[in-house]
Amino acid sequence: MISYAGIASISGIIALIFAFILANKINKVEVGTNRMKEISSYIQEGAMAFLTREYKSLVLFVASIFIVLCLFINPLTGVCFLVGALFSTFAGFFGMKVATKANVRTANAAKKDGMNKALSIAFSGGAVMGMTVVGLGILGVGFLFLILYKLGNDPSESAKILTGFGLGASSLALFGRVGGGIYTKAADVGADLVGKVEAGIPEDDPRNPAVIADNVGDNVGDVAGMGADLFESYVGSLIAAITLGLIAYGINGAIFPLLLSAGGIIGSIIGTFFVKADEKSDPHKALKMGTYVSSILTMGFGIVLSNNLLGDLKGFWVVLIGIIVGMCIGQLTEIYTSSDYSHVQKIANQSETGPATTIISGLAVGMKSTLWPIMVMAFGILLSYSVLGIYGIALASVGMLSTAGMTIAVDAYGPIADNAGGIAEMCELPSDVRGITDKLDSVGNTTAAIGKGFAIGSAALAALALFASYTAAANLSGIDITNPVVISGMLIGGMLPFLFSSMTMEAVGKAAFEMIEEVRRQFREMPGIMEGTTKPDYAKCVDISTASALKQMVLPGILAVLSPVLAGLLLGTEGLGGLLAGALVSGILMAIMMSNAGGAWDNAKKYIEAGNHGGKGGEPHKAAVVGDTVGDPFKDTSGPSINILIKLMTIVSLVFAPLFVQYGGILLKILK
Amino acid sequence: MISYAGIASISGIIALIFAFILANKINKVEVGTNRMKEISSYIQEGAMAFLTREYKSLVLFVASIFIVLCLFINPLTGVCFLVGALFSTFAGFFGMKVATKANVRTANAAKKDGMNKALSIAFSGGAVMGMTVVGLGILGVGFLFLILYKLGNDPSESAKILTGFGLGASSLALFGRVGGGIYTKAADVGADLVGKVEAGIPEDDPRNPAVIADNVGDNVGDVAGMGADLFESYVGSLIAAITLGLIAYGINGAIFPLLLSAGGIIGSIIGTFFVKADEKSDPHKALKMGTYVSSILTMGFGIVLSNNLLGDLKGFWVVLIGIIVGMCIGQLTEIYTSSDYSHVQKIANQSETGPATTIISGLAVGMKSTLWPIMVMAFGILLSYSVLGIYGIALASVGMLSTAGMTIAVDAYGPIADNAGGIAEMCELPSDVRGITDKLDSVGNTTAAIGKGFAIGSAALAALALFASYTAAANLSGIDITNPVVISGMLIGGMLPFLFSSMTMEAVGKAAFEMIEEVRRQFREMPGIMEGTTKPDYAKCVDISTASALKQMVLPGILAVLSPVLAGLLLGTEGLGGLLAGALVSGILMAIMMSNAGGAWDNAKKYIEAGNHGGKGGEPHKAAVVGDTVGDPFKDTSGPSINILIKLMTIVSLVFAPLFVQYGGILLKILK
Repeated sequence: MISYAGIASISGIIALIFAFILANKINKVEVGTNRMKEISSYIQEGAMAFLTREYKSLVLFVASIFIVLCLFINPLTGVCFLVGALFSTFAGFFGMKVATKANVRTANAAKKDGMNKALSIAFSGGAVMGMTVVGLGILGVGFLFLILYKLGNDPSESAKILTGFGLGASSLALFGRVGGGIYTKAADVGADLVGKVEAGIPEDDPRNPAVIADNVGDNVGDVAGMGADLFESYVGSLIAAITLGLIAYGINGAIFPLLLSAGGIIGSIIGTFFVKADEKSDPHKALKMGTYVSSILTMGFGIVLSNNLLGDLKGFWVVLIGIIVGMCIGQLTEIYTSSDYSHVQKIANQSETGPATTIISGLAVGMKSTLWPIMVMAFGILLSYSVLGIYGIALASVGMLSTAGMTIAVDAYGPIADNAGGIAEMCELPSDVRGITDKLDSVGNTTAAIGKGFAIGSAALAALALFASYTAAANLSGIDITNPVVISGMLIGGMLPFLFSSMTMEAVGKAAFEMIEEVRRQFREMPGIMEGTTKPDYAKCVDISTASALKQMVLPGILAVLSPVLAGLLLGTEGLGGLLAGALVSGILMAIMMSNAGGAWDNAKKYIEAGNHGGKGGEPHKAAVVGDTVGDPFKDTSGPSINILIKLMTIVSLVFAPLFVQYGGILLKILK
Repeated sequence: MISYAGIASISGIIALIFAFILANKINKVEVGTNRMKEISSYIQEGAMAFLTREYKSLVLFVASIFIVLCLFINPLTGVCFLVGALFSTFAGFFGMKVATKANVRTANAAKKDGMNKALSIAFSGGAVMGMTVVGLGILGVGFLFLILYKLGNDPSESAKILTGFGLGASSLALFGRVGGGIYTKAADVGADLVGKVEAGIPEDDPRNPAVIADNVGDNVGDVAGMGADLFESYVGSLIAAITLGLIAYGINGAIFPLLLSAGGIIGSIIGTFFVKADEKSDPHKALKMGTYVSSILTMGFGIVLSNNLLGDLKGFWVVLIGIIVGMCIGQLTEIYTSSDYSHVQKIANQSETGPATTIISGLAVGMKSTLWPIMVMAFGILLSYSVLGIYGIALASVGMLSTAGMTIAVDAYGPIADNAGGIAEMCELPSDVRGITDKLDSVGNTTAAIGKGFAIGSAALAALALFASYTAAANLSGIDITNPVVISGMLIGGMLPFLFSSMTMEAVGKAAFEMIEEVRRQFREMPGIMEGTTKPDYAKCVDISTASALKQMVLPGILAVLSPVLAGLLLGTEGLGGLLAGALVSGILMAIMMSNAGGAWDNAKKYIEAGNHGGKGGEPHKAAVVGDTVGDPFKDTSGPSINILIKLMTIVSLVFAPLFVQYGGILLKILK
């Protein structure tokens, strides 16, 4: 039976081959003018330089954790951890390399061949990222699970060791998300505040010294960061489902999520062929079609697998619940953050009375936007639990992520189209080129909302499933919140996402400050820039963003890894359980609040720029820009990082649980 | 033994007599010029009109809850609820009546007799509020406990019925805090935005139509709202300690918190005599002296009582822990919100780059400021639990609030001094009068930080103690967070403070909007106002604030009362326990975050106004004003209301626990 894990991992190889074919196809497309080649190479070099330095700076961290794992837990767990970290690195590198090739070719296609071809290239670029992530994810989990078994570990022992792979994926994802998030926002703010506001030049103007850094930022934050993020979710929920499935159904329970994900990969590959638009059709429809096709195919797989492996359709039902929950949250996200709905329009309305009311109403929308997603999640949890117990919750999150190949493709397509627009601007291509990329980009924004819904929903469910696995690993029969040790843990855990958000927000502030200073310096010391006679020092700005993002990501990263370890040692396994639960609750809320408030401000600004409330340049617009600037670190740095934070903390606890069982609770012993 | 409850309630009568004597003393002091009498009568009438309408509008609510209690729980619980609501009403009325008398007399004394006399009157005004609150609190709890016993209920049954009194206090406190908070901020924003910014007239200028409403707001929000708030905390922690004390120590365990609070009242009364300053001394020292004297006396009582009633000093130790935790949180609050420290200075610094960075850094400070208070609280919880079990946690909160008579006096003194300054301005008294009241006011702001620390700390501990009482009342042997029903409850509970904050913030926005419109209308339609020839229509502004505050407080209030009832019925007692725990964790965090961010923005603005970063009128100042405006609903409406929200939800659950035990968990039954 366990050899099916090998079959599942073959689907990973298929995904990787498909990604490779797509990448090759993109590579063969014409790049465009020399100017386009030049600009594009700047972006590509900047992005690669960042990733290289980022991963280099993490070598020490990875090595230390590896040694700790080998010494205190199990050398095999250490090896799994290394593989997880390596796979995450590879997914980031390869996905981004292709994304930075696809963007310039999208711009060129929009110029030469029009919408359909441009859509196809941008989407193919995203699909490479998507297929690489899911391919490496299932390959790692499935293949390692099989090997560990063949090495003589029983399945549940193998699953335990496999958590090391999850730890590798999660810790690199956190650094990737935080580092990338800081980079992109520092560059964005630097480019906007000095270039657009102070110097008065348009967005993506080649005279802006921070313009390359800004475009690099879109790639390292939105493409690589997001890829690492979803790689982590994908792997985390698979591992949790395998662990809990073994308890509930034996080996069949472990194979079901693996084969389901394999089916999802096949479904996603087929789905990509349905993403086609002609010049007159709406690219939105094309993307939706692809998503629907892959979802329906995957559900078909789900029915067959559930019937054969679990003996009834219960497995299918919880997968369906997961998909519905994800779609609902996505839809709700859209209601709170799209300018088609009243919430964003109200924020735009409040911008009439200045920045203060803009901020208050945006925060209020963000806070309010937690209501229905939480209700949907809570109901989804109860429902899947009532169908299949705690295993059902894990399966719901696997179900949500089963079509991640497609979801990521659609998600990563957005920043590629956005970047294509930037390149068109910088290379002074005709305005109708920008028109096409803008249309592609705006479609990306809408579809991305659904992706976000899946990201948040699956994060919550996966964290919950990992939490259940932790309880099992720590031999806890329950975690009683009437126990003050647990309550103390919950309070501290609840506080961590607040502290973490504050750190990441301040990090963006510091990095942006350095960037602002540098852009100002260049304008001041090189007057030729504004006249267009001197080329600005793009590399210096790229360098500043890189250096300060890498410096600033250290502290939040360490907080995430160390706090559960300290809590386990001081408060014991039950206190740590409280900490995880507190972090889970406040983390999900903060993540939803910050992401949605940020998205709502962003679109309120765009709504005004579309000509409402006096349009661009008026006082309401200025107020809306303040809202958008506050929202930037909310939605692109702090918010999405919290999703990873809660899972990383749980997986750290899960991996180190044996240690806490033996040595934990030092503070409690002192107090006694 | 239980007759000691009667002795404790005698201390309540002493406190009320003392309050009455102080009020009489204030009444006899000269009011001042006719103009002062006129302005003061406007404020007093406005404040009283608000309270009257507020309490009238709550009659229906109180009556419905009374009927529900009589029908489903116990008629005696219903009666206790009525008494609690009545006492809360009385405390609000009487305290505010005296405060609105004290403010004008403080202004007059500052004009005629100087600092010492002005301090004495302002402080006496605050002390009336303080003594009324603690007097009514202990009288209600002690006397009702005794009567219920005499009526034939055993002590633990009596304690159960007594929770009705807590419910009355808490529900009125919530409406008072929310209604008052909306009122004060709507008036404040209206007065500031149109008067100061648009019309360019100074603060508290009599030509501003909203100026009276603004001053009324200080009273209904900061005096009456705060009084009802602390009345609720005081009563809640006493009831929780009695309930848990009966379990741990029998009747002695119930008598100890009562007599300790009685000792605290005597200590506070003696302490008030030490609040004396001469013209050259620092009023800060005088207030501190009073606080120290009452704390030391109360601790002396604590030693004697602990030894005699509990047989050792353990009771004293946890009281001491409570006091130390409260002081630490107060000190930490000061570090994050006073301009003497780096956090506020950093926000002021960030205002150099505009409102967006001001907002980001203020939010970051608010989020960061949760770290140490939570750590202190968690450690305090663990420590007091290790000394005296769950009863120890309840006693720590009783200890923190034992000197509430003094804490409230110091807290309520601030707005009285602030109001006195406003009256001095409106009546065009010489500028040195304003100098004295400003000095008194600024001292009030510092001492208020410590009061806030006690409010937050005691809210957390009291909620926790009530939570433990709920578990007992619902016959739960534990609440297991690995149970998905509990996790779902926690997620929903954690979401409620977010939803609640969003509602209160939007309420302030709506009420402020109506006020802005009205002030603009008056300036437009009555041009004589600006020339000083026409008197603005103050009453209309007062009326608008009143009406919209009362309208807007309904929804958040109902949310607070209904959500635990719905959760209990749908999710059962354990799910409700999860909901309470989730609300407790996210509520405390949001309360600290919002209060501290608001305080920090406020003081960053004042720091700039003191001449830093270009002083008043510069661009940094404008940015700081945006921060302050965002912070206003944070610190004066949403933040402090959340403290009550979490306790009210817990006490609702506690009172209705028998109902949920019998009929709860409907949704779970359907899902099965």
